[in-house]
Amino acid sequence: MFKEGDFILIVYRDKKYLRVLREKESINVGKEVLKFKEIVGKPGGVKIGNFSVFKPTLHDIIMLGFRRKTQIIYPKDAFYITFRLGIDKQSKVLEFGTGSGALCAVLSHIAGEVYTYEREERFMKNATENLKRFSLSGNVRFFHSDFSDAQVEENFFDAAFVDVKHPQEHVEKVHYTLKPGATVGFLLPTANQVSELLKAIEDRFTDIEVSEILHRFYKPNPERLRPEDTMVGHTAYLLFARKVI
Amino acid sequence: MFKEGDFILIVYRDKKYLRVLREKESINVGKEVLKFKEIVGKPGGVKIGNFSVFKPTLHDIIMLGFRRKTQIIYPKDAFYITFRLGIDKQSKVLEFGTGSGALCAVLSHIAGEVYTYEREERFMKNATENLKRFSLSGNVRFFHSDFSDAQVEENFFDAAFVDVKHPQEHVEKVHYTLKPGATVGFLLPTANQVSELLKAIEDRFTDIEVSEILHRFYKPNPERLRPEDTMVGHTAYLLFARKVI
Amino acid sequence: MFKEGDFILIVYRDKKYLRVLREKESINVGKEVLKFKEIVGKPGGVKIGNFSVFKPTLHDIIMLGFRRKTQIIYPKDAFYITFRLGIDKQSKVLEFGTGSGALCAVLSHIAGEVYTYEREERFMKNATENLKRFSLSGNVRFFHSDFSDAQVEENFFDAAFVDVKHPQEHVEKVHYTLKPGATVGFLLPTANQVSELLKAIEDRFTDIEVSEILHRFYKPNPERLRPEDTMVGHTAYLLFARKVI
Amino acid sequence: MFKEGDFILIVYRDKKYLRVLREKESINVGKEVLKFKEIVGKPGGVKIGNFSVFKPTLHDIIMLGFRRKTQIIYPKDAFYITFRLGIDKQSKVLEFGTGSGALCAVLSHIAGEVYTYEREERFMKNATENLKRFSLSGNVRFFHSDFSDAQVEENFFDAAFVDVKHPQEHVEKVHYTLKPGATVGFLLPTANQVSELLKAIEDRFTDIEVSEILHRFYKPNPERLRPEDTMVGHTAYLLFARKVI
Repeated sequence: MFKEGDFILIVYRDKKYLRVLREKESINVGKEVLKFKEIVGKPGGVKIGNFSVFKPTLHDIIMLGFRRKTQIIYPKDAFYITFRLGIDKQSKVLEFGTGSGALCAVLSHIAGEVYTYEREERFMKNATENLKRFSLSGNVRFFHSDFSDAQVEENFFDAAFVDVKHPQEHVEKVHYTLKPGATVGFLLPTANQVSELLKAIEDRFTDIEVSEILHRFYKPNPERLRPEDTMVGHTAYLLFARKVI
Repeated sequence: MFKEGDFILIVYRDKKYLRVLREKESINVGKEVLKFKEIVGKPGGVKIGNFSVFKPTLHDIIMLGFRRKTQIIYPKDAFYITFRLGIDKQSKVLEFGTGSGALCAVLSHIAGEVYTYEREERFMKNATENLKRFSLSGNVRFFHSDFSDAQVEENFFDAAFVDVKHPQEHVEKVHYTLKPGATVGFLLPTANQVSELLKAIEDRFTDIEVSEILHRFYKPNPERLRPEDTMVGHTAYLLFARKVI
Repeated sequence: MFKEGDFILIVYRDKKYLRVLREKESINVGKEVLKFKEIVGKPGGVKIGNFSVFKPTLHDIIMLGFRRKTQIIYPKDAFYITFRLGIDKQSKVLEFGTGSGALCAVLSHIAGEVYTYEREERFMKNATENLKRFSLSGNVRFFHSDFSDAQVEENFFDAAFVDVKHPQEHVEKVHYTLKPGATVGFLLPTANQVSELLKAIEDRFTDIEVSEILHRFYKPNPERLRPEDTMVGHTAYLLFARKVI
Repeated sequence: MFKEGDFILIVYRDKKYLRVLREKESINVGKEVLKFKEIVGKPGGVKIGNFSVFKPTLHDIIMLGFRRKTQIIYPKDAFYITFRLGIDKQSKVLEFGTGSGALCAVLSHIAGEVYTYEREERFMKNATENLKRFSLSGNVRFFHSDFSDAQVEENFFDAAFVDVKHPQEHVEKVHYTLKPGATVGFLLPTANQVSELLKAIEDRFTDIEVSEILHRFYKPNPERLRPEDTMVGHTAYLLFARKVI
């Protein structure tokens, strides 16, 4: 049952809002008002006028609740990445750069522990706040540092994910700190970066997969089913590989 | 370190094989032979000739280790579905039909408990074997039953996923057994099924998302980077919605 | 050489403008001015400051010169349609509805004669003006009429293209007025329309092709090659078939 | 009416065949036979058993009638290219390399004259035969030569299309032989080629467009409408630009 201070997802037709339940507050959409005190004591899925109210999922939190200081890693990519890395509750996962923390939130949902490095202070601050605000940081260790300055152990991490501009500069160090056979993933906005990274990793990694994921949404009208007029045309290329020894 | 009886992923150039490590066995690819006894005592990532050997991830297990008696739900879809449902270690998740168990394996990785229903005996048998073989069935309850015959409690499940031919016939029962505000997903191969289901759910569910995910792979050649010549053109449409009360 | 009254395509970095060359006029982009009198007597491809000036192609005319009172048929679709219909300089082509005349302009480029029907007077007026303004209407006959009211001969047209809301209502008449074996195409925004039309044509037409064309643009940066962030996600499904007798 | 020696397109359910009508010949598909003498004197669209017979279009000829010694340029690309170049009955168009002649056939359908260069003798021979066999070579001049050895005039061509491995080597010469303001197109299988070409053309060309066209086919079943399971994932990137002076 909803209570003061809970995060709530408010759905109004095809609009969605993520808010904190404060009894004295309300939301206006179109000409309708939802007073938050009406939600208190009600379960998820309650309908009040044309509003319905839910407990937000991790997906809602990332899409609607996280403050963005960088381009975020979209769920279509973040969900694939997290499973593709092959991690579980025992895994220690390395991530850099943290960005706004979207992928970090998903990784930490499955992994035992996530070590995340971000060299820009304002990004690190924002990502930390995003995760803490939604109580997602329990197994996350934040490092305000460029990965090239990080102190890391050999054969330490079960998986790694790299989202920085020049990933090829870190290939040797990533290889060093990964356990033998561990999986690494990279997010690369441009085709040139893919080519450069492929050259940089070929001696130390194998089983290379390069792909991109396109997510196409449809208008949910049963009598006029059709894709949305516009779609995200590109987020990034994804590259996965495995450490050989 | 690898030992007799372990599952091993063998990578040879752009080919991959999932096997059980039996000391007396070996694999031939091209004109090269890998004797499995050479792997014993070695860590993941070991290179032997042009072979390299790894501990398989969940992704490898589903793609290469699961016996398929049905079309499987591909990782691109299964990974998105699992996170999109918003489940965690406390969640009880309903799934029907089980098919070959690919999605079930991913759901069980995150959820507290998965209840999976399959009416075809040979599919149920195969899915059970797939999950048990790879020790993925610890938190899965298998039911050899059409979902319409299943005994389910009201307000019981935290999320549900439906992959059957006529999902609209089960909408009322799915709504009944989901907790208020819970998320449900559907896998629908045809546009007609999407239209029919949209009509069937509109009174009981809201926040409807219809989409499809296209996964496009590239040839990992740094000097000649380009997409693969052919790609999977379609697996299914995905529909997500939330129970209103 | 450019002269007063010519249509000119002005390119300024990644911006484009289609204008009539009037000696007294000019264009401002950013902080730069191009006085049109400087263009007179110059050939296509001339560079004046950061502007370059060209004779517009049919593609430019449709994209930048046509006034749109309806959603236009995009070049990616119009070019495929026109060739796919299998027409040449001897062909008489039927088209309805005309819309803004974009497809009509392309059809008339290849066909001997185009008969185009549009029931909305303001669309017909606009399409006629679009084509006449750019001298594209020489072999086009405009009919302000719903196709169901049109007087058409049996076995008359070499090809037909249909872009109306309920094409299935016109299938019999289209079949009647096409020559035996002739090709027909349809533009259908929704999946439901495709299903309905497939049912309506199966007795009278064969060799059915249903497809959609996705056109993905890239940022032309050699050091950072990547697709545009957003793209047109859907225009319409295309259906082609042949008249059987 | 069909007569001895005509090209015929035979449709049998979802299969298609392009043949020459020889009265003594026949075709077997499944367990059915179509004797060609039954077709003589019949019009296009005639149904004989489960066969139907049509006069082939240019699209059919390229897809089913052309002998392929190279990867052909697919209709989705060829149709877009031809119109995008902005040519008409007055235009002289340059093309190299000819390959199997698929694009040449489409260009010659609109252009006044096509000059096509191919350095491989067996490709040139095959392309010439393809076009001559279907009477498509009337306005095509074939040159068995590498374009770098070709004698070309300055400011001669209204448009050009380039499909060779290292197009950047020909940029200066293409620029020289194009009329001021003329459009040029390039077909580039790899992202690296796009980057290299972008660098090579930036001084001499402007209004650059890089894109790729994806053509997705659907199973034409009205009750079970869905995309085909597999699709062509990539043919090539297309680059268009205009000559500046």
